[in-house]
Amino acid sequence: MENKEKRILRGNAVVGQSGGPTAAINATLAGVIRGVIHARTAAPDCGIVRLFGMRNGVDGLLRDDIIDLDALFDPAFGGTPADLDTLALTPSSGLGSCRKKLPAPGSADEEAVMGSLLSILRAHDVRYFFYIGGNDSMDTVAKLSAYADKQGYEMRVMGVPKTIDNDLMGTDHTPGFGSAAKYIAVTTQEILRDTAVYTVPAVTIIEIMGRDAGWLTASSALGRLVTGFEPDLVYLPERPFIFDEFYEDVAAALKKHPNVVVAVSEGLQCPDGSYVGEGTQSGSVDVFGHKYLAGTGKALELAVKAKFGCKVRSVELNLPQRCAAHIVSAQDIEESLAVGEAAVDAALCGVSRAMMGFARTGDEPYAYGIGAQNIADIANRTRCVPDEFINARGNQVTDACVKYLLPLIRGEMYPEYENGLPKHYIFK
Amino acid sequence: MENKEKRILRGNAVVGQSGGPTAAINATLAGVIRGVIHARTAAPDCGIVRLFGMRNGVDGLLRDDIIDLDALFDPAFGGTPADLDTLALTPSSGLGSCRKKLPAPGSADEEAVMGSLLSILRAHDVRYFFYIGGNDSMDTVAKLSAYADKQGYEMRVMGVPKTIDNDLMGTDHTPGFGSAAKYIAVTTQEILRDTAVYTVPAVTIIEIMGRDAGWLTASSALGRLVTGFEPDLVYLPERPFIFDEFYEDVAAALKKHPNVVVAVSEGLQCPDGSYVGEGTQSGSVDVFGHKYLAGTGKALELAVKAKFGCKVRSVELNLPQRCAAHIVSAQDIEESLAVGEAAVDAALCGVSRAMMGFARTGDEPYAYGIGAQNIADIANRTRCVPDEFINARGNQVTDACVKYLLPLIRGEMYPEYENGLPKHYIFK
Repeated sequence: MENKEKRILRGNAVVGQSGGPTAAINATLAGVIRGVIHARTAAPDCGIVRLFGMRNGVDGLLRDDIIDLDALFDPAFGGTPADLDTLALTPSSGLGSCRKKLPAPGSADEEAVMGSLLSILRAHDVRYFFYIGGNDSMDTVAKLSAYADKQGYEMRVMGVPKTIDNDLMGTDHTPGFGSAAKYIAVTTQEILRDTAVYTVPAVTIIEIMGRDAGWLTASSALGRLVTGFEPDLVYLPERPFIFDEFYEDVAAALKKHPNVVVAVSEGLQCPDGSYVGEGTQSGSVDVFGHKYLAGTGKALELAVKAKFGCKVRSVELNLPQRCAAHIVSAQDIEESLAVGEAAVDAALCGVSRAMMGFARTGDEPYAYGIGAQNIADIANRTRCVPDEFINARGNQVTDACVKYLLPLIRGEMYPEYENGLPKHYIFK
Repeated sequence: MENKEKRILRGNAVVGQSGGPTAAINATLAGVIRGVIHARTAAPDCGIVRLFGMRNGVDGLLRDDIIDLDALFDPAFGGTPADLDTLALTPSSGLGSCRKKLPAPGSADEEAVMGSLLSILRAHDVRYFFYIGGNDSMDTVAKLSAYADKQGYEMRVMGVPKTIDNDLMGTDHTPGFGSAAKYIAVTTQEILRDTAVYTVPAVTIIEIMGRDAGWLTASSALGRLVTGFEPDLVYLPERPFIFDEFYEDVAAALKKHPNVVVAVSEGLQCPDGSYVGEGTQSGSVDVFGHKYLAGTGKALELAVKAKFGCKVRSVELNLPQRCAAHIVSAQDIEESLAVGEAAVDAALCGVSRAMMGFARTGDEPYAYGIGAQNIADIANRTRCVPDEFINARGNQVTDACVKYLLPLIRGEMYPEYENGLPKHYIFK
């Protein structure tokens, strides 16, 4: 990495979470905390003196809302390291999140926002800044590191990826995706069982998250090479959605068997760029004058019902996709922890203005390495499902896609339960 | 039981599944199969010679679509009993299901339907009939046993309960309910984590199954006595839903904290008897002229958005509530197996025209017994959530309700996984 310098930089560290929550983002937080504890144990003068957590990302930091993570988790400061295991399997962003976009360089409010951010960081002598998040969060990392550099304030700024969408550049996949993909793959298998019980023709439409990239929707097909069961049709947002072709596909599927299951991405768009879920089919407006956003699954449910007259149901997998910590991928949790620790190690070695990412080094058996990527190559870009992962008709994924996805959902790991409910770690 | 006679009745047995699938209905099927294997092992001349399964309930039986379960599972007939463990944790109705309502006594098609049903049973020398299902299935049991009696055909007809709705009479609770309740309780805890991360006011509405009875919706509050977290508001179909009171409740909740979570039953009705999800608010009709059934959660999402202008999201838990076999209640699976075995034992002892049910014999520690109930007291009646389980305002459940529910979700049991996906048993 270009910005690497081996000299020990002494000061405090702060870690925050940003963007939409996932089932694994707290595992990465636990990884950062563990990384700091390990580094100080190995070398008391490693550089990081105290570790703070910012509440609600940079939004909370701007209000000076920070907590002492050492006191909670580091035994040297009276903390309980065992709580990190509970934290790692607690869904959502334990420290809270935000969706704040920092002002662009040269914009009117740059000084007001970036200036106060930096003065708060300076007041706490923060020299290490870890930000766990997706695309927007990497934008924060890029802007903050550039501003600190400009002001001559020495601080190592690291992005640690998380997003269920798997759409970040500079990494083979993203932490949090594997667990969401596992939830979707397992739930799709269960829905395939559920829909198979009747003999009357019926179409079930599963709506899956991923506005711009179809990785999550593709995961519904993961059973193909394991159980032999998968949805009849899978539509990703990487291809324009053509209603006439869709109707042909459904008719062909209904000829084969009565219980047709279709997986669709929430972000499907018609060739004219309108969203399928926009309600453009009916143009209906509710009593309050709102354009009715039925959702992609619901819109297609109504369309299939009108076209075929058969029983149709739509199932929006909704929030559980990103917070179902009761069915995580063990591979994902292991990697989410590891990438947090690796970010600490890299920063202590002098890396800055970078995002940690995964490189796949083997398929069967699956193997990976973790490295730092220049943040400029990553922020504000979307990694879509490539052409070779989608079939020619655009209504299924290829075996190559399934093979790419499979290692990411491997392994089970369950939270501890008490009286029938999972134990979660809650920051007071 | 009145119809009990100790004499050995020799002949074959048939088992079927009916109504909506659950995550535990195959456990009860496994229980019936195991019960027959055990009975024959204990006493080769117990009475049951061969055990068949009907495909798609009585619908399949009318087409003579039956399979030999002994050949699949009983080692004495070359079967693999270990497969019963996989079957028990396979969601949905493995044998298929149907929603057929048998003709009433004296109706025009009684002879056509009941007559051919009986002649098929007679042809296979079926003397034991086990039917796993909910309210409608118990109606089938009642009608079939009455008709067989009238025709002088000796057959012991047993209902084995299952329904996620928990709304059958004659039993403390129903097999399948505990697993659905656990899925709902766990998922609600996860959604509570997910919705807590932002600081802007937001309302999240969780729509839960249960058209007539609120047992499943009540289960969203299970965290109260375990984790301390529960939805702010819980509305059951047992109470009329009054929009003005709902708005007051939401306003009061938003004053306390920004992330309000509301659990609602799909079956909520306004005082005039219309369903909240009927789209009566907007009266909108889509381009095809269909009355738009938005769903209760979606209707309330739009209503809250219009009233408060804040961020609102609705989450319909949908099919996973009844098929999420990856997160079953161990207590429920144990009981579902046990009630299947008990049905066989009871029938062999001469019980007929009965449904097996649970009686709770202790709360802390929880204890239960299994007994047979006269089918006439059960069929076509709904057991609703009693008054003492709902608060005076009708917007939450009481502690007594939580205490009733808690033992039913206790314990975890996980299916076997292969390459990241659960192994399910599929009838060929």
